[in-house]
Amino acid sequence: MANEITSIGFVGLGIMGYPMAKNLAEAGHPLTVHNRTHEKAARFADETDAAATESLAELASASDVIITMLPGPPEVEETISGDGGLISGAKDGTLIVDMSTSSPPLAKKLAERAAGSGVSMLDAPVSGGDVGAIESTLSIMVGGESSDFERARPIFEVMGKTVTHVGESGAGQIVKAANQIVVALVIEAVSEALVLGEKGGVEPEKILDVLGGGLAANKVMEVKREKFLTGDFEAGGKVKFHHKDLGIALETARQFGVALPATALADQLFASLIAKGREDLDHSALITLVRDMSGG
Amino acid sequence: MANEITSIGFVGLGIMGYPMAKNLAEAGHPLTVHNRTHEKAARFADETDAAATESLAELASASDVIITMLPGPPEVEETISGDGGLISGAKDGTLIVDMSTSSPPLAKKLAERAAGSGVSMLDAPVSGGDVGAIESTLSIMVGGESSDFERARPIFEVMGKTVTHVGESGAGQIVKAANQIVVALVIEAVSEALVLGEKGGVEPEKILDVLGGGLAANKVMEVKREKFLTGDFEAGGKVKFHHKDLGIALETARQFGVALPATALADQLFASLIAKGREDLDHSALITLVRDMSGG
Repeated sequence: MANEITSIGFVGLGIMGYPMAKNLAEAGHPLTVHNRTHEKAARFADETDAAATESLAELASASDVIITMLPGPPEVEETISGDGGLISGAKDGTLIVDMSTSSPPLAKKLAERAAGSGVSMLDAPVSGGDVGAIESTLSIMVGGESSDFERARPIFEVMGKTVTHVGESGAGQIVKAANQIVVALVIEAVSEALVLGEKGGVEPEKILDVLGGGLAANKVMEVKREKFLTGDFEAGGKVKFHHKDLGIALETARQFGVALPATALADQLFASLIAKGREDLDHSALITLVRDMSGG
Repeated sequence: MANEITSIGFVGLGIMGYPMAKNLAEAGHPLTVHNRTHEKAARFADETDAAATESLAELASASDVIITMLPGPPEVEETISGDGGLISGAKDGTLIVDMSTSSPPLAKKLAERAAGSGVSMLDAPVSGGDVGAIESTLSIMVGGESSDFERARPIFEVMGKTVTHVGESGAGQIVKAANQIVVALVIEAVSEALVLGEKGGVEPEKILDVLGGGLAANKVMEVKREKFLTGDFEAGGKVKFHHKDLGIALETARQFGVALPATALADQLFASLIAKGREDLDHSALITLVRDMSGG
């Protein structure tokens, strides 16, 4: 629950944004919402006390803090700094918080553009998926000025459980990229280990149990255990979104001059899963690709 | 402590074998030891009540259970089934337990050869490193017949903390290979995440803390945290041994018809570390290679 009531604009009512905005509405914040497909914003307004608008300028002028939760970097850039976008419509002193998973260099660039118009900006991507969004248990990693972080903290605490200020502008997106790198490679690691075991006639439960007791232990083996064992890959974190996130990590690495060989491989494996029509499965479906590659 | 006193032969008093045999001696088992460099066996005999012998045949005839802890598959095959090796010297009903990290198909083959001579065999590789060997906290993964596993269990419990029967002959080695695959790839994953963060100006502690709270959490980040943060890569699990283990995993995959693309990449990265003279560093030194590749 926020200590202070703030007028909030919320842009992007997708699978993540909708429940996040819902939690803000239930915490008592006056909300103005916008969504590319306006019907969703209208439905949100019907279900809550929020106002829905088709105009980003109208949303911006009505809000002290504006949250964006969008598919990726192109939508983030267009919405925040495009013609008729949030920066151009925002009042002096407005705080824009981009909670999308987006590009670290873009986050830095947008923060600079915002500052030039008297607007503050935070990058604050999340992990925890749609369940975390619904249950307000998201992990939120925030880049930007400390004073802006403190200003937004009560709002973050409505939407998430772990809220961490990780550095200056762009740092939130870097930590999110780091997170997606590790999750992808751990999934691939467990997949290769399990398929080797399958072909050698070892029960996968034995592998998961023994590995879980030592240095190989990891959260993916715990959380995805049933998916690995049953082969039911209902998402969860979807293949197509994880592939998008690895694209951001690799593009960022390219700009920073960093070589990420294993991340690049994981990115290609996700690309193959998408080519095979498995883009909507849980990211743990990487194991199906290792099986395909090993003769099924 | 063993329930029953068994005459044990122990072959291979290296960094792992020496403390393992020491713990067996302290548990009261009559021991005969052998080491390629005999001085080490003689020293062991001086420190304990054990007998040291240069003859594998002599060791075999004096023992009900024989444990081998050797560098790798060639030494295992030669010692167990070579001319003048353990199988040829063993009494009927002897149990040979290979605790080396070796090849799953070789473990199966040796068990068959042993059976042909009235000798039983288990493959029982360990994880936990030299500290685990000294402190009797090894994790032991065992392949072979249940009755042989039960016979050896009291001996395993002197040397390790977690003892698991994972399947038939070769299964212990498969689970060990699976373990080494996951550990290697998690190290590489964390390394790529941290180097991306370094180049983007994010404190590594922030990355480790945030990732440790979510789906990216893993034991490597906990256990190797200080190594990643300080750059002091005193081993621990050495690069050269992990590289050997991945070679076994890939050779096994080749025999099983399994494709392990990320494991193959990790194997090559370890090969590069060795080429750069870092073979004796801890395996977490993979991060130094990612840094090298990214301009230092």
